[in-house]
Amino acid sequence: MTIYQYNFPTKILFGQGSITRLPEALKSAGKARPLLVTDRALAQLAPVTSTTGLLAKAGAAPAVFAGIWGNPVKTQVLAGVEAYRSHGADSIVGVGGGAALDVAKAIALLVNHPGDLFDYEDGKPDARPIDRDIPWWASVPTTAGTGSEVGRSAVVSDDETHVKKIIFSPRLLAREVFADPELTSSLPAAMTAATGMDALTHLVEAYLSRGFQPLCDGIALQGVKFVAQSLATAVAFARRVEQGSQEALTSPEHLAARGLMLNAGMMGGVAFQKGLGVTHSLAHALSTVCDLHHGLANGVCIVPAMRFNSDVSSERLADLARMVGVPDQSAAGFIGWLVELQAQVGIPDRLSSLGVKSEHIPALVRVAVADGCHPSNPKPVTAQDFERLFRELID
Amino acid sequence: MTIYQYNFPTKILFGQGSITRLPEALKSAGKARPLLVTDRALAQLAPVTSTTGLLAKAGAAPAVFAGIWGNPVKTQVLAGVEAYRSHGADSIVGVGGGAALDVAKAIALLVNHPGDLFDYEDGKPDARPIDRDIPWWASVPTTAGTGSEVGRSAVVSDDETHVKKIIFSPRLLAREVFADPELTSSLPAAMTAATGMDALTHLVEAYLSRGFQPLCDGIALQGVKFVAQSLATAVAFARRVEQGSQEALTSPEHLAARGLMLNAGMMGGVAFQKGLGVTHSLAHALSTVCDLHHGLANGVCIVPAMRFNSDVSSERLADLARMVGVPDQSAAGFIGWLVELQAQVGIPDRLSSLGVKSEHIPALVRVAVADGCHPSNPKPVTAQDFERLFRELID
Repeated sequence: MTIYQYNFPTKILFGQGSITRLPEALKSAGKARPLLVTDRALAQLAPVTSTTGLLAKAGAAPAVFAGIWGNPVKTQVLAGVEAYRSHGADSIVGVGGGAALDVAKAIALLVNHPGDLFDYEDGKPDARPIDRDIPWWASVPTTAGTGSEVGRSAVVSDDETHVKKIIFSPRLLAREVFADPELTSSLPAAMTAATGMDALTHLVEAYLSRGFQPLCDGIALQGVKFVAQSLATAVAFARRVEQGSQEALTSPEHLAARGLMLNAGMMGGVAFQKGLGVTHSLAHALSTVCDLHHGLANGVCIVPAMRFNSDVSSERLADLARMVGVPDQSAAGFIGWLVELQAQVGIPDRLSSLGVKSEHIPALVRVAVADGCHPSNPKPVTAQDFERLFRELID
Repeated sequence: MTIYQYNFPTKILFGQGSITRLPEALKSAGKARPLLVTDRALAQLAPVTSTTGLLAKAGAAPAVFAGIWGNPVKTQVLAGVEAYRSHGADSIVGVGGGAALDVAKAIALLVNHPGDLFDYEDGKPDARPIDRDIPWWASVPTTAGTGSEVGRSAVVSDDETHVKKIIFSPRLLAREVFADPELTSSLPAAMTAATGMDALTHLVEAYLSRGFQPLCDGIALQGVKFVAQSLATAVAFARRVEQGSQEALTSPEHLAARGLMLNAGMMGGVAFQKGLGVTHSLAHALSTVCDLHHGLANGVCIVPAMRFNSDVSSERLADLARMVGVPDQSAAGFIGWLVELQAQVGIPDRLSSLGVKSEHIPALVRVAVADGCHPSNPKPVTAQDFERLFRELID
């Protein structure tokens, strides 16, 4: 696989082996003491150990901060800032999924910005301005889903209230993204499916969302095509890897599918600046109330959500049917494809199998109604709509 | 029509009446003395007079520099810098097509950068760096084609040798684009067709070009859809306006078509960072040797150029057929659509009707071979290929 560079606006280095270019990128930026910010579960695995190895071999002095788990909280960020200072770091390399990359951004913010992290909460009336440079940082995604590697925001929760706060600024963009399919090739099948459905939901909801952003529309359509070409394949290979196949791990067909999904994830991350929709509000409620994985929740909810949208968005859903290449090029054809994809990649079609119960519905509806995503849904969503959708998914 | 804002990376304000937001944008940037940079032919027309009127009414002190005509040359830029200084300007508003917007960028560059304009030529071994801020500047496109309003380069020719020099830097990006379809609605039919074919050629060649840039691919496909939905309509209305119909000028259907074409032009400007191809090398030779309008040359050459590419790019051309919605969703179907579009908008299918003769061929081939666009064409183009293509278009 060749390594391709593209800038959009972030400089992206995509391809098998692109991570080997990280040391020279760091050197070109005049940096030598990077702090690797990563998830606790990843610290001993190849994406982190091979990256620190590459950096050390090139003469850099990396340190690892792996104090991230679950939904990231503020104390994790503060511990990361402490690690940055005690290492005398001059740069950050975020390695992981959305959580690690979001915390990397938040640490980078606090290095040169005074006060409390949540002083910078987006939209807060008296928020402090994000008006200084942040340290040079590179993002190294190990999942294909959140798009955080090309995103401009970090979501960090309050330790006590668990309320999610969004920190947003174009200054938080990574300076370079190293999108290397090999770093995602040992992701388990269930996580491949859940993060892949997250990418798909970003793309589909961005394409359907209100507003006029034709560049995002085009990126979303192309990204959906990539998901159709690769998600089921990536999951099938992940299953073979789980069954112990070394051949599956390094198969070119597997890495090509992982590569398309990495791009689909980044395209979703770029496209959803246009807006999201009802699926995300359902999923946010499920994460808050029932601690469901965000991608998994999106993957379950997208089918009834698109059925809900199908009357007002029939043309756009038909465009999506054309992109995924189903014979029935209509909204129903696209929704049928979604149902089939769920089955192929092992995403359940009901929430009941995930421990969500009828008694959760009032709390779920409250959180969903207050969520910031559904106002850009193509069709208004009432509390009654949310209740009906949750009930349909549980009963 | 609503006014939509989207940022990509330039902040774009799109919609009928979006130009009325220019004074407040200037004020927010703390600027009061803009220099309007425009084409000689435009200086007395509505896009310029109404814009200066809006600015003056809002308390700003605009001055107009209209010393641009034909393919822009360096002395025009220098005269513009002189106008900037003598007005004591603090900002620039470029109003026009590619020529005016390119000169606006070059003037902005020289305000804070020392030495000669061509010291900054892109790729020159000892080129001076473009490393300082340039004055705040806004672009106001009056054609839908070049994409210069969202571009990062200026093409300016040497006054004596007529050699085109490219000045390139992300610093040259306009701070805001005011994309107002009303400002393009009195563009004559022939110019609407020629600039529209320019936009289409950017989109098609970007989609086919070598390399991997999936975001540009998606943008290109969506842009081609817009051209299919609007170019023939825009030209048909332009003809009615030329016949004196005031109703046609302000018809919502006309303005909607102009709006789609404005976006298609910007999308082409963004997408062709991926690369261009053989059509552009043919067109650049025709402009240099026979002084043909760039968009017109692209519009004539795109048909044989795509036939030339059709063996290696059959899949991508079929994707384009799907986007324009022809029943024959193959490469041949797309090329058939191009032929029909040429006829509808009045672009000739031969160069002979434009004064290009067999005796020009050797010079045309020399310039085309040396051109920088065809190396990213999906299929290598030899001197023999160029000769055959020119001959086919003339005989």
